[in-house]
Amino acid sequence: MNDTEDKPDINHLDHPADIADRLQEIPVEDAVSVIRELPTETASEVLSELDEDVAAGITAQMTPEEIGELLEEMPHDEAADIAAELPPEQRYEVLSHIDPEESAQVAELMRYPEDSAGGIMSDEFIVLPDDITIEEALKRVRQDEDADEDIEGVSYIYVRDRNNKLAGVVTIRDLVFRHPKRMIRDILKPDVQYVRVDDDQEKVARIFQQYHFMALPVIESDGRLVGMVEANQVIDIIQEEATEDMQLMVGLSGEENTFTPWNKAIYKRLPWLYVNLATAFLAAAVVGLFEGTIARWTTLAVFLPIVAGQGGNAGMQTLTVIIRGMALGEIEGKAGRKALFKESMLGLLNGLAVGLVVGIIGYAWKGSFLLGIVVSIAMFLNMFAAALSGVMIPFFLKSLKIDPALASSIFLTTVTDVAGFFFFLGIAAIAMGMVGM
Amino acid sequence: MNDTEDKPDINHLDHPADIADRLQEIPVEDAVSVIRELPTETASEVLSELDEDVAAGITAQMTPEEIGELLEEMPHDEAADIAAELPPEQRYEVLSHIDPEESAQVAELMRYPEDSAGGIMSDEFIVLPDDITIEEALKRVRQDEDADEDIEGVSYIYVRDRNNKLAGVVTIRDLVFRHPKRMIRDILKPDVQYVRVDDDQEKVARIFQQYHFMALPVIESDGRLVGMVEANQVIDIIQEEATEDMQLMVGLSGEENTFTPWNKAIYKRLPWLYVNLATAFLAAAVVGLFEGTIARWTTLAVFLPIVAGQGGNAGMQTLTVIIRGMALGEIEGKAGRKALFKESMLGLLNGLAVGLVVGIIGYAWKGSFLLGIVVSIAMFLNMFAAALSGVMIPFFLKSLKIDPALASSIFLTTVTDVAGFFFFLGIAAIAMGMVGM
Repeated sequence: MNDTEDKPDINHLDHPADIADRLQEIPVEDAVSVIRELPTETASEVLSELDEDVAAGITAQMTPEEIGELLEEMPHDEAADIAAELPPEQRYEVLSHIDPEESAQVAELMRYPEDSAGGIMSDEFIVLPDDITIEEALKRVRQDEDADEDIEGVSYIYVRDRNNKLAGVVTIRDLVFRHPKRMIRDILKPDVQYVRVDDDQEKVARIFQQYHFMALPVIESDGRLVGMVEANQVIDIIQEEATEDMQLMVGLSGEENTFTPWNKAIYKRLPWLYVNLATAFLAAAVVGLFEGTIARWTTLAVFLPIVAGQGGNAGMQTLTVIIRGMALGEIEGKAGRKALFKESMLGLLNGLAVGLVVGIIGYAWKGSFLLGIVVSIAMFLNMFAAALSGVMIPFFLKSLKIDPALASSIFLTTVTDVAGFFFFLGIAAIAMGMVGM
Repeated sequence: MNDTEDKPDINHLDHPADIADRLQEIPVEDAVSVIRELPTETASEVLSELDEDVAAGITAQMTPEEIGELLEEMPHDEAADIAAELPPEQRYEVLSHIDPEESAQVAELMRYPEDSAGGIMSDEFIVLPDDITIEEALKRVRQDEDADEDIEGVSYIYVRDRNNKLAGVVTIRDLVFRHPKRMIRDILKPDVQYVRVDDDQEKVARIFQQYHFMALPVIESDGRLVGMVEANQVIDIIQEEATEDMQLMVGLSGEENTFTPWNKAIYKRLPWLYVNLATAFLAAAVVGLFEGTIARWTTLAVFLPIVAGQGGNAGMQTLTVIIRGMALGEIEGKAGRKALFKESMLGLLNGLAVGLVVGIIGYAWKGSFLLGIVVSIAMFLNMFAAALSGVMIPFFLKSLKIDPALASSIFLTTVTDVAGFFFFLGIAAIAMGMVGM
């Protein structure tokens, strides 16, 4: 690919998020040269909009000076995210090229784990002391605004007391429409809901979802206000968490996306495929127990995929509802028992409905009434087992403090395969003994 | 369960969202009596926080007057959502109990489909004409504020021209810190990004995610500003869309949750289980083709679940990455081909890695070199087929304008079962012929 083929796509007047999208589709070398040609401010915004893996690929080909220049333009929290992905030796060199005060603030934010409230918060917000007048407050807000035009989405302004602790919140409107000589402490709304720096981002997202806040303050363990999280940032977190759940279920890393290079993805996928293999051998061993039975009646082998496939699908339906319900905070207290009841009912009824049909088709296809009965009962039992394990596997993982989604579909199909084959071949063996086959 | 057991849980000083959570865990009759005892404003907020199914169960036991009283307290968009769930006859009676002006506004919002921008927007926002001064604007904002204290999260104020079309946006700060005699039209920021009433909510969510807005105006087809969507509302939509994708994949409705009654869930789940059954019979038919082969070598039956299970799991990994990538807008333009390349590579390499191990274990377990070779090759081919179909199934569904997630795991396991059994038993039959088994 040559330059003239790719470059015309990128217009520096486009929104940085759109430029970032297009850079993700072209070779890294070309992306680097596009970034170098963009105005610094745009380039910096583009870099922070890029997928993590792609951004890391691009910075790997830039000098510490160049990276430093871009980080300096970014909000501190975004600079901290990029810097955290750099190899340690490069990281310190990059930070040494940034204005020391900025660099200290970036380093400060890097202390927090990526998926904690501290890791996602912004440190750019307005905070006012509680012992000034509204008039004075407006003056400070105005100065702050001149310093940073980004702080305009939300109209909440936090208030600290003389110990630097979060004392309350006021809105710009309060400042504009109330008497200018009143003290901030007299007009603030106390009892602001907040999160702590070490709260998990999933908890933060849950609070936004439950109470529909536009922003939440973040405090340190000593009560100091150190940052804020806004609703628009939470959108990304919620997408991340949903991606994680979907991926963990099937044995992916939880962090893979379309841009993850295959040589990175394979290290996460292959181990779970081996786990799945081990569980598949478990199911095979159950079939192995009944090799003699199958040798006497080969048609049984034909029905193995039906028993396993139906159990697996029904179980996945239950599992998906439960794991999603847990992620959304639906399943708490008595809701857990309610869910078990509902899924058991569905297991029994779907088991009856499917078992009956499978039995009839089995009889019609192979002309054996015995086969119809056996596959019917096995299917019914397996669908019920699928429902129970679809509820119990995530609860069990959760009780071990493991993410309830983790490899849950692998564990589920183990149960439905093992139980399904055991029911089907076991009942067949008994029935064959009874009729003297 | 008696009253004294449940009632003490509910404290009307709690946040309505928390009260709603607890009402979802108790019998509907008890929930209705709790709602009746709450102050009207709280009761109204609780009702709009409830899960749709639970809310419908509760309103079914209330009189139109009671429901009307609660709807009157709600923001119009939330009242519209509740009213839309009422049976039509009851709906008109309820609306007739509401102040006619309010009722008209609610009815207006009910015209828009539930999952469109019009269906999710709020009609409570401040709009200023462009031909007034800042001084006059501030006066109007102040009056608006007195009328509705809810409009305080976002500091965006939209501006309309003399034809009522969206002309731009100003912030509260602009009004406060600029010269009071300047005209709004001279300070507004034009070229505001907006959505149209009939845009799908998924598109709206995508725009918020891409550009990190705090709010977006919604316009009618004639350019009139009719509502706004805020980032905190988008959080719910994103959760809904993620739930939908996860559920559709395994043959659920996309709208089921822990609170969906079993007798409603079964109508959605059972049809897909029957679809899965039909595809399972397809896989069984492939095994049926080789019944003679299995009769001669029963051990083959033991390896059926391994071939199918591994293909299914590997395919689900690919499918999950692709469907999620589509939902997040990652897979567009050249990214689709990149994804196919990546997944093919992973299919080949994981296929080699797993095929080899399965072959060795097969040989070690059953002492047959032939079995090891056959299962090894079949596994390799099936893992590659799994990767290809994991990419191609969602692209195929999308090209038919069907949701790419719809029942995709059912289709995928059909491919991996059918292809896996065909490779495995077919190669076995050929190999057995060659060695004269």
